[in-house]
Amino acid sequence: MDQQVGKQSLRFTKAPFILESASMGGKKEGEGPIGHQIDVVGEDDRFGCDKWEEAESTLQKEALTLAMGKAGVKPEQIRYLYAGDLLGQTIATSFGLLDFEIPLFGVYGACSTAGESLGLASMAVAAGYADLAAVVTSSHFASAEKQFRFPLEYANQRPLCSTWTVTGSGAFLLCNEDFLRKREKKPQGRGVRITGITTGKIVDYGVRDSMNMGAAMAPAAADCIYSHLKDFQRDPSYYDKIITGDLGAVGQEILIELLRQRNVDISGNHTDCGLEIFDNEEQGTGSGGSGCGCSAVTLSAHFLPKLRSGELKRILFVPTGALLSKISFNEGQNVPGIAHAVVIESEG
Amino acid sequence: MDQQVGKQSLRFTKAPFILESASMGGKKEGEGPIGHQIDVVGEDDRFGCDKWEEAESTLQKEALTLAMGKAGVKPEQIRYLYAGDLLGQTIATSFGLLDFEIPLFGVYGACSTAGESLGLASMAVAAGYADLAAVVTSSHFASAEKQFRFPLEYANQRPLCSTWTVTGSGAFLLCNEDFLRKREKKPQGRGVRITGITTGKIVDYGVRDSMNMGAAMAPAAADCIYSHLKDFQRDPSYYDKIITGDLGAVGQEILIELLRQRNVDISGNHTDCGLEIFDNEEQGTGSGGSGCGCSAVTLSAHFLPKLRSGELKRILFVPTGALLSKISFNEGQNVPGIAHAVVIESEG
Repeated sequence: MDQQVGKQSLRFTKAPFILESASMGGKKEGEGPIGHQIDVVGEDDRFGCDKWEEAESTLQKEALTLAMGKAGVKPEQIRYLYAGDLLGQTIATSFGLLDFEIPLFGVYGACSTAGESLGLASMAVAAGYADLAAVVTSSHFASAEKQFRFPLEYANQRPLCSTWTVTGSGAFLLCNEDFLRKREKKPQGRGVRITGITTGKIVDYGVRDSMNMGAAMAPAAADCIYSHLKDFQRDPSYYDKIITGDLGAVGQEILIELLRQRNVDISGNHTDCGLEIFDNEEQGTGSGGSGCGCSAVTLSAHFLPKLRSGELKRILFVPTGALLSKISFNEGQNVPGIAHAVVIESEG
Repeated sequence: MDQQVGKQSLRFTKAPFILESASMGGKKEGEGPIGHQIDVVGEDDRFGCDKWEEAESTLQKEALTLAMGKAGVKPEQIRYLYAGDLLGQTIATSFGLLDFEIPLFGVYGACSTAGESLGLASMAVAAGYADLAAVVTSSHFASAEKQFRFPLEYANQRPLCSTWTVTGSGAFLLCNEDFLRKREKKPQGRGVRITGITTGKIVDYGVRDSMNMGAAMAPAAADCIYSHLKDFQRDPSYYDKIITGDLGAVGQEILIELLRQRNVDISGNHTDCGLEIFDNEEQGTGSGGSGCGCSAVTLSAHFLPKLRSGELKRILFVPTGALLSKISFNEGQNVPGIAHAVVIESEG
């Protein structure tokens, strides 16, 4: 019964399974260190569309279709869909997921959306509100640059601290134990479950540089990870990996230092999806990858297989978001951050 | 145990209470038919701010502060906050709710956000994930016109079918029975509970006119209400009122006709928050009020008191959203709709 843990965490007594997942990536993502693990990599970043926003919608549609195909489930079996993206009014989601006709909870948590959505979907499955639920998030380099910074044609120079928005989408199917046991087709490898979550607060350290998102998000990541460890009374070493979403190299350094100031050392087991998905030196991606797609693709393509194989037993997945818009940025507002932590463990 | 009802609905066995709520409105809202019921009405629509977006953030901050004040609760007692607005990257929410330091689930459902957020918060409280949770949504006429249509200075003419974005915010505190019983301060009047929800799907009838949102949203409202009645095997007469969010006069007519074609007659007990909040003829508000604030303010100021007094026993509250952005509109995309239904009942 004791589901509420500490001040802002939940422990699921009926922990949902990640039944299946799928990832889509763009050309650059395909050329990166985990490119060979991404399910489908596009030849260009248009994915057969005329507009960048439509291309991003296509990424979401294909990622969910692929996850359903792998799992052998149909849209009508999915009770609720939790999804979001970075674009104004989350249009990549609205137009990408329209055709599935699945009841939809639209989510906005900037680049933390994968963490927020996995959290909400886990809550629903663990509570018995859904036997099967889906999570989809995406980002696209070109639609994000257009939305937040400059038109691509302007070819602006990028500071080294800037991150590179990942073109990609990840989709996840979450189910309860009953649903899994009843299926003829079992997922390969070990069962992987979401056993708890820590929902983050907005944290504002006064960063105003939209070209340095790592610095904007690191304080929120530190706050969420610190709260998580405190709520669960765990040491960082409980986890094989603590994996933030898209802090990049600059944000990673700040995160580790902020936690060290609070006597928590994650330097030994921290990594960041933005550092896994690109080789910054080889690929010219500045501080690392970013976007709602960054953490979702890296979790699906790179970390879930390691959990299925048993190479990893327990991870803390912490997607990080920078809360800004073109308007708030132009009006001189700060860029506050938010992060949401998800505990993912492999069975047996 | 049987919480899942039909294809897309939930019945809460431990139905959460609406502990308290509060509403903020602009000048025009204050002059409308329910103006005297809104908790705080601004003298102008700036609420002491220089920018429209900041004014909207202030509306959210004040609405939540007011609801907490009425209930005598502190931010640290609120376990989770579910909130959203219409602006790109939901900045009214990010900057309005930052200071409360409450773990936040950011939500985007266009003008259906109040329904989606109340649904998610109810799910959390009913499942035992939170003893007390909060919901906040807002909209602002000036920030929305700037975001979706034309600068106000342009003074464009508006067709009669267009709706008028409500300047306002509503905040709701949801709690479980234990939390309510333990309090010394009881809410006045009868207990009001959220006993079920029906989560909507995106519905696209091909409407492309961003000046006729009622027509864009009516098909989604019809689909959600039809599914709700089917899932719960209820007749429309089960409800004293079926209350959509912001269809306005044009959308109302379409909704009633669409349901009539499916042999469901809601003409006797349907109303729309957009028709309650403004007197279209007197106030020149076209087809009626709209926005995330419209349904939230009208529920808090007008309908909840009627449920507390027993004048209404059961309502179906169905906020409606039009899924568009400046970009999707300019790129010639349709305006699909979504709607989320919440069953609200008074005790005894």
